[in-house]
Amino acid sequence: MVGILLTSRIKALRDSMSKNQLDGYLVSNETNILYLTDAVGTSALWIPSEGENLLYVYPVNYESVKASAKNCQVTLVKRSEDPYRKLAEQIQQAKLKRIGFDNLHAASYLTVRKSLKGTRVKPSGKLVQDLRAVKDPPELAAMNKAAEMTDEGVKTALNMMKPGIREYELAAEMEYCMRKLGSEGTAFDTIVASGARSAFPHGGCTDRKIREGEFIVIDVGAKFGNYRSDITRTYMIGKPTPKQKKMYEVVKEAQQRAFEKIKVGVRNSEVDAAARKVIEKAGFGQYFVHGLGHGVGLEVHEAPTLNAESRERLKAGNVVTDEPGIYIVGYGGVRIEDTVLVEKGGAQKMTMAPYDLTIR
Amino acid sequence: MVGILLTSRIKALRDSMSKNQLDGYLVSNETNILYLTDAVGTSALWIPSEGENLLYVYPVNYESVKASAKNCQVTLVKRSEDPYRKLAEQIQQAKLKRIGFDNLHAASYLTVRKSLKGTRVKPSGKLVQDLRAVKDPPELAAMNKAAEMTDEGVKTALNMMKPGIREYELAAEMEYCMRKLGSEGTAFDTIVASGARSAFPHGGCTDRKIREGEFIVIDVGAKFGNYRSDITRTYMIGKPTPKQKKMYEVVKEAQQRAFEKIKVGVRNSEVDAAARKVIEKAGFGQYFVHGLGHGVGLEVHEAPTLNAESRERLKAGNVVTDEPGIYIVGYGGVRIEDTVLVEKGGAQKMTMAPYDLTIR
Repeated sequence: MVGILLTSRIKALRDSMSKNQLDGYLVSNETNILYLTDAVGTSALWIPSEGENLLYVYPVNYESVKASAKNCQVTLVKRSEDPYRKLAEQIQQAKLKRIGFDNLHAASYLTVRKSLKGTRVKPSGKLVQDLRAVKDPPELAAMNKAAEMTDEGVKTALNMMKPGIREYELAAEMEYCMRKLGSEGTAFDTIVASGARSAFPHGGCTDRKIREGEFIVIDVGAKFGNYRSDITRTYMIGKPTPKQKKMYEVVKEAQQRAFEKIKVGVRNSEVDAAARKVIEKAGFGQYFVHGLGHGVGLEVHEAPTLNAESRERLKAGNVVTDEPGIYIVGYGGVRIEDTVLVEKGGAQKMTMAPYDLTIR
Repeated sequence: MVGILLTSRIKALRDSMSKNQLDGYLVSNETNILYLTDAVGTSALWIPSEGENLLYVYPVNYESVKASAKNCQVTLVKRSEDPYRKLAEQIQQAKLKRIGFDNLHAASYLTVRKSLKGTRVKPSGKLVQDLRAVKDPPELAAMNKAAEMTDEGVKTALNMMKPGIREYELAAEMEYCMRKLGSEGTAFDTIVASGARSAFPHGGCTDRKIREGEFIVIDVGAKFGNYRSDITRTYMIGKPTPKQKKMYEVVKEAQQRAFEKIKVGVRNSEVDAAARKVIEKAGFGQYFVHGLGHGVGLEVHEAPTLNAESRERLKAGNVVTDEPGIYIVGYGGVRIEDTVLVEKGGAQKMTMAPYDLTIR
């Protein structure tokens, strides 16, 4: 099953290479390599327009990669060798016209260009990303599992939340819950940002004690079968002030409006606009300091993006976040986020933890 | 205190730039930026040979970076802007001769080179890495704290270990223990590799149930104040066979011999050789498939490296791992690792969890 899937992914990549007039594609992003070969701990993958794919790996991971890699010939790179020089030497005699690459570092790019004098070496980072943006059924099954674990993590935080508990203690409880359910670590560094810290979108977590009457932003995700999930909820112990209540309700409505907009064929920028309009109309526009969302999958941030600058339209099988927020520095912030599957007639939420702001 | 430290780091970087005849240095590695400015979530840092340092950040993290960044002017990058193009435009008029960079991606490198026609743009990745390789007292304090948490994690695993427990369950217990002690997540993806899986150096953890009489390799680390720790122990429930006992003892002796070799001025390659000699002499040379160790600090793998190809000599304040291993595919593996501080007359182990192979 996995083998068939990977073969179809390589076929799709070759179609894309052909459209971009590339005679070969050099993959150096480890996650892209995982997507195409099912192997981790590798250095480089070479996909020619036809013939055998070559996967380069250092001795430390050679045996585990040999045991798991599909659709490629696994080549050992000695510790003293540069995999990119080695690869360039191996494809030199083919005298290719034009090759592409994904995320090569500049030093490796210069090595490859030097070894392949007659070949044009072109940054073409989006090829595998674009394939990865459309999830197939086994990917969605793993993501649904990750989303279920994530919901359980949030519910654990809800049960543990009380004045005096520290941000990192809540993170510990959520992560432990998800891990025991089978989560492969966390999808990203857990955020528990309370009080004025909730105004920092990527606030991490500290040893600050949670208090009544302040926003507590929880942003967490599980990982299963290498696939990730991503959720944010904002909670409060006790009664919100009218301003806090307003902020919460505006973000909630923005998130819902965006969700209702999501379906195949809609411009990604329109989904962002649907949420942004609600927040701007309520007078909080300047405090919504990021795009509405991003793709989720093998990485927590991947294609496609949902913001005002996005040029694409939504496709069936995209999995994106819908996460508007209002962040008032020195006061506090609210963000509500779900991981959402794009379908033909609409969208489906994969994450489903409770929304209610006030927890007791 | 932090401010003074950072100022001295920037001064040291400028000295290094001067030695390398660089008129400016472009830092794109996020960890290098953290080391120099105390800020996270940034896009690029420009260090001119003199004058103001410029830190580029997207709106989502602008406020948190403004609140934490030191020794630089924080510049907002719009979502539609490329930070590297913006930076290149800002330094264009200075008509610099030669600038260096750390880990720029090829696409960004091409952007910078295009905008700075008369300037030589040179990969010089080691400048900040080399500074980071020598830890100062506050860094060591954080690392000692991380090491203590790591030891507690391993002890928790020892207490929980029994036939039938799954690899990921042990990981859950260790991570929970470290997290509750204040660990900022994990230093890297925890490894619990049992049975034949122990022969894969980076085996991760699965839902496999642990059994009596097999190797259980545990490789785990805590993180505190952004600094990491790294330990590996190999344990077994029940009695080892003579071959298992031999493998364990050889690795243990190799680790000890290397440890005794570590002091200021010794060649890193000699430390690797000290361990390798023991393993080769015992007939297991072909199964020690990686270098002896690596630096640890803000990242779990950083400078310096300790392997046969290393060209440096140990410096006071280096923190390195000492981690020989024997990996027999289809049979099992042993690795023993400590995080070690290099001092003038010798070395000091930062990690100290129990070594004994047999746990009951």
